[in-house]
Amino acid sequence: MSTARQMSLGLSMRYHGYHVAAWRHPDYVPGCNVDFSAYRDVARHAEAEKLDMIFFADGVAVRGTDTPEGALSHDMKNAELEPLTLLSAIAACTSDIGLVATASTTYNEPYHVARKYASLDHISGGRAGWNVVTSWSDQEALNFNRTENLAREERYARAAEFVDVVKGLWRSWEADAFTHDKAGGQFYDPAKLHVLNHKGPFFQVRGPLNSCRTPQGEPVIVQAGASNQGRDIAARHAHVVYSVSQTVEHAREFYADLKARAAGMGRTGAAPLIMPGITLYVGATQEEAQAKFDTLQALIDPLAGLALLYTFCGDLSGHDVDGPVPFDALPQGGIISIGAGLLAEAKAGNLTIRQLYERVAAGFTGRFLIGTPESIVDDMQMWFETGAADGFNICPPMLAQGMQDMSDYILPELRRRGLFRTDYPGTTLRETLGLA
Amino acid sequence: MSTARQMSLGLSMRYHGYHVAAWRHPDYVPGCNVDFSAYRDVARHAEAEKLDMIFFADGVAVRGTDTPEGALSHDMKNAELEPLTLLSAIAACTSDIGLVATASTTYNEPYHVARKYASLDHISGGRAGWNVVTSWSDQEALNFNRTENLAREERYARAAEFVDVVKGLWRSWEADAFTHDKAGGQFYDPAKLHVLNHKGPFFQVRGPLNSCRTPQGEPVIVQAGASNQGRDIAARHAHVVYSVSQTVEHAREFYADLKARAAGMGRTGAAPLIMPGITLYVGATQEEAQAKFDTLQALIDPLAGLALLYTFCGDLSGHDVDGPVPFDALPQGGIISIGAGLLAEAKAGNLTIRQLYERVAAGFTGRFLIGTPESIVDDMQMWFETGAADGFNICPPMLAQGMQDMSDYILPELRRRGLFRTDYPGTTLRETLGLA
Repeated sequence: MSTARQMSLGLSMRYHGYHVAAWRHPDYVPGCNVDFSAYRDVARHAEAEKLDMIFFADGVAVRGTDTPEGALSHDMKNAELEPLTLLSAIAACTSDIGLVATASTTYNEPYHVARKYASLDHISGGRAGWNVVTSWSDQEALNFNRTENLAREERYARAAEFVDVVKGLWRSWEADAFTHDKAGGQFYDPAKLHVLNHKGPFFQVRGPLNSCRTPQGEPVIVQAGASNQGRDIAARHAHVVYSVSQTVEHAREFYADLKARAAGMGRTGAAPLIMPGITLYVGATQEEAQAKFDTLQALIDPLAGLALLYTFCGDLSGHDVDGPVPFDALPQGGIISIGAGLLAEAKAGNLTIRQLYERVAAGFTGRFLIGTPESIVDDMQMWFETGAADGFNICPPMLAQGMQDMSDYILPELRRRGLFRTDYPGTTLRETLGLA
Repeated sequence: MSTARQMSLGLSMRYHGYHVAAWRHPDYVPGCNVDFSAYRDVARHAEAEKLDMIFFADGVAVRGTDTPEGALSHDMKNAELEPLTLLSAIAACTSDIGLVATASTTYNEPYHVARKYASLDHISGGRAGWNVVTSWSDQEALNFNRTENLAREERYARAAEFVDVVKGLWRSWEADAFTHDKAGGQFYDPAKLHVLNHKGPFFQVRGPLNSCRTPQGEPVIVQAGASNQGRDIAARHAHVVYSVSQTVEHAREFYADLKARAAGMGRTGAAPLIMPGITLYVGATQEEAQAKFDTLQALIDPLAGLALLYTFCGDLSGHDVDGPVPFDALPQGGIISIGAGLLAEAKAGNLTIRQLYERVAAGFTGRFLIGTPESIVDDMQMWFETGAADGFNICPPMLAQGMQDMSDYILPELRRRGLFRTDYPGTTLRETLGLA
């Protein structure tokens, strides 16, 4: 009945819900998107349910553009809390759940990133994780003295060096470097301090980090890049990989490729763990689940819908929303590589513009499922047991309600099948992920 | 008996104690310098005693050099927690006390600083403060792609523009910009969003900040620069100024100058509040206080003592520590402007090298007092009532013990004289400081 291998589950908490119309739902509490206590309460709920980790995606700008004109003011994705401060506050109110925050290698310096995640690892007793991103939007560039984002090649070259520097800084001090020898007057053993002295094409960083070795040794590294360069960084460094796959076939290809790349770099053990993102609409019956879905979809303002498509399709406001997607007129070379699968799906299905933005709203670029606990867990189990996933990154359409659905429906069914833990195996994120 | 005007009091918490030999004291718990719970407990104590704020000084490097050779390993100032993550965690465990963290304008980008302090202000319900520093050490430069620090003129020019950008970003959204109009589908009112579009010599930052207006409107600004450029930034922006004065005459000059500069810029009201740093050695009797002082001073390793002087005097290890300070051989142009007063004091007093490093150890660059509650509060009251101070930034030689001394000795005496509050007047730092 129960299997030795169990799923990893993360809860993605940004914006207090991912659905573009979540904030219009009667149950959404206005202002919860910037309310610390609202996030804290969901984090505690996720910890009570023994989830591996909570996660904050991030960008260093209001990424939306006001195209079509007026669209931006219909979108809740303008105001948020900063992930490292927020997770540090949550760390003080929790004891076991992993805490994963995004930071960009394009618009940060490695010393700051190394230091802040080390500090979070200390504060949380070994529960910190860094989701490494390279940032994709020009809006971010405009906040950091540039007129456009770095080109992909340069972004990834910088990212690769950035991660090396951060890991080097995390290794500045051996775990037993600080001797605290009061009688002899020696605070640390000089032989156990390693000054980095990094000099590379992007960074010159002397070190050492003004911290000591963290409870996990080094915080967990998470990565989500789907491109060739992103997969290489993930294979080399990541403990967890967030993936986006529309089909189980694509997911299996990605899974096998990542595991093979990691093995090719000499890595052994379970990492990198592959956790595709999924958005769940669940009810005791299929009808109840469908009604939850339909309620949210009916609240999508067409302007907000068109803004959702802007990144992939440009401005479609000159077209009839109930007419076909003008595939031939779309800008070439999507900004986000994960947008390609979505457009292929739209083309195959002959979707109208409205149907396409409804599709994006339902699960953003990821997969969404509408069903009963049994049907959804059947699907998750199939992915988990057929080489497509080691677990899932749950991206709820509405955060508190989505976590409640996990509690009420999904986790009991997963546990009935022995697919998810009933308690934490230790206190660090590495232990929870089975990587300690 | 009680006066309308009362002191502001801050507690400076870095390193869990400022004395270079604090960690060798029998009461110092090894590892408390990187232990979140140890800081949290002192913060709660400070809040129970109604202090205005806790404060973390900061630098983005191990600032000490290993000169004389081996000195660095005798110093506890190598390992610490990062202030913004630490204060965010403390925010979740407190409800009223102000939370002030240092961030450098030389080794940061304004968008990150604006965002993180805004986030801390949200998380804490309006208790965030930013201590603006320009960073003085080459060690920091070496961690950020440079070989030496920026020259003073450039540092301060950058700082002035940096603060303008941060304040502009904090004003991106009016307080009532977010309408949350579920029925109409409008999340915010476009007329209440102000895009910064800053283009200056150091920074190009478009904005807006991806936050909403914070509980305080804008976090409190703290400054500590003693130079002419530092005073100008303080006079223009600061709500609180940390000053370093060895004599009441110097303190009065500084106080009057700052207030006059602020008035000259059209500022009215109590700010900037001037809070000189002081280090207290207090006991029920003078003998008890002196014994506390002597115990710590006796624990100073000569190498650690010489390292304390390195910043001001260069490497003095070739000289007899019990011989005179070789004033004529010292490097010209002290790195820190506040070091000048200290050297003048040493020259006037004909101090030996040992006596000078003992003087620095006792109160770093600030003033220290050894006495009974009555004698110390007499001194504080005289400064407070004769135009030298609006309050004090307490820099304890040992943190937990120093806060306990405040509780046991200083605060009861201040309250007996009506010089310090018995409860918080509100919940934000601005309210606590009397600036709301």
